[in-house]
Amino acid sequence: MFRNASSTDLPAIITLLADDPIGATREVASKEMDQAYLEAFAAIEADPNQLLAVAVDDDGKVIGCLQLSFIPGLSRKGMWRGQIESVRIAASHRGGGLGAAMIEWAVEQAKEKGCGLVQLTSDKRRPDAIRFYERQGFVASHEGLKLDLS
Amino acid sequence: MFRNASSTDLPAIITLLADDPIGATREVASKEMDQAYLEAFAAIEADPNQLLAVAVDDDGKVIGCLQLSFIPGLSRKGMWRGQIESVRIAASHRGGGLGAAMIEWAVEQAKEKGCGLVQLTSDKRRPDAIRFYERQGFVASHEGLKLDLS
Repeated sequence: MFRNASSTDLPAIITLLADDPIGATREVASKEMDQAYLEAFAAIEADPNQLLAVAVDDDGKVIGCLQLSFIPGLSRKGMWRGQIESVRIAASHRGGGLGAAMIEWAVEQAKEKGCGLVQLTSDKRRPDAIRFYERQGFVASHEGLKLDLS
Repeated sequence: MFRNASSTDLPAIITLLADDPIGATREVASKEMDQAYLEAFAAIEADPNQLLAVAVDDDGKVIGCLQLSFIPGLSRKGMWRGQIESVRIAASHRGGGLGAAMIEWAVEQAKEKGCGLVQLTSDKRRPDAIRFYERQGFVASHEGLKLDLS
């Protein structure tokens, strides 16, 4: 099942974000949660164009997460975009179709919001992830360029 | 000079978006402005995390535009991202450094907002644009994947 995340899901989400070879270098999954995560969660919750979602198993345990941003824009005749970020599936649940179902669910949310396009970027060091999105119908038509300000 | 766009800039911005081999297939730069553009402009103006900006010449004529979105997120320890979209420079002003100055200005806005990263995607059919962003320090580390919902 997929639902909006609540603040009580935050430790589980951060654990998911950190449980990944690239994410492990970036996240801090400590018992005392980093204040920055709490502030980020508050900013996401306060913004009606942000949707932080979790996948939960039958026992209510968080086994996946993603963030969907709804972005208004002028291009393509004033088209809204849905943008997917921070997709993670728990290691114990990979390979069983949960990721595909979660992306399908997110695309459905974007359609309901009136988006004409769903977009995301995927690190080139994750070829399996890129192939996964291509199987979901995404086309790698663009370069994803990043400028680190840190 | 760069400044926030106002609704009176809208016809000039749409003309810029359409004045491009790829954009020309997507935009409608008519005298009677498409209602969809007006609604999109209203949505951008109503969202404090969206900044639509124009470059103007000494006579106040619009010669460039871009949209900057500020996106809160949990990844990378609750880092905010700045995302650049819909970058255009008037044909008459290309090659003179205006684009670089506009991107530099946008990056500065993202820094002031506390973003740790600025990101954008660029169509692979625009190799000159991709090289331009790489010269500004952007790294093409990601694939930009799009799913058309239309």
